[in-house]
Amino acid sequence: MTHISADHPVLTFINVFTVKPENQDRLVELLTSATDVSVRYAAGFISSSLHRSTDGTKVTMYAQWRSLEDYQAMRDDPKPLPYLQEALKIATFEPGMYEVVKTFEPVQA
Amino acid sequence: MTHISADHPVLTFINVFTVKPENQDRLVELLTSATDVSVRYAAGFISSSLHRSTDGTKVTMYAQWRSLEDYQAMRDDPKPLPYLQEALKIATFEPGMYEVVKTFEPVQA
Repeated sequence: MTHISADHPVLTFINVFTVKPENQDRLVELLTSATDVSVRYAAGFISSSLHRSTDGTKVTMYAQWRSLEDYQAMRDDPKPLPYLQEALKIATFEPGMYEVVKTFEPVQA
Repeated sequence: MTHISADHPVLTFINVFTVKPENQDRLVELLTSATDVSVRYAAGFISSSLHRSTDGTKVTMYAQWRSLEDYQAMRDDPKPLPYLQEALKIATFEPGMYEVVKTFEPVQA
């Protein structure tokens, strides 16, 4: 499970992939494989969550890292490259690196 | 705190706002106000988390709702409109509606 909180100093990556609906399942498989063979073993990896859009046109990875240095070190690992290269044949992606400003809870009426 | 899990059937909205860096703080204020005056009181609102990109060019809201019907009912509330209209004067946004496929945890070496 991923926990989002402004109290924990983590670096957050929200990467939005755009894909044709007929390729959404394959993209989910490729990003899952890339995470399972490499990312999960990387120092400083905290958590990630994979989302599929209900209209079929997007897949978004929400990932938390301890630091930019840890994230960049993972990027040097060649093991996930075959999956990521195949992913970028069927999808475009818009990366983003963030800090959490705040979280909002419901106000009970 | 927001909890992301594939085991909880929630509807997730990941809305990416693009903004000039000099307007990022103002956009964060406007989205915070819209949430505080309206969204937090809406039936079916579970949680949301506001993120600012470290390069200043994006603000992303990660929001969880019980159902599409609850989300659409909130959209009929006029109270947040002044904040959202001002936000769209300084930002563009790319909405996305998702389900969580899975979450990944670190593998301990």
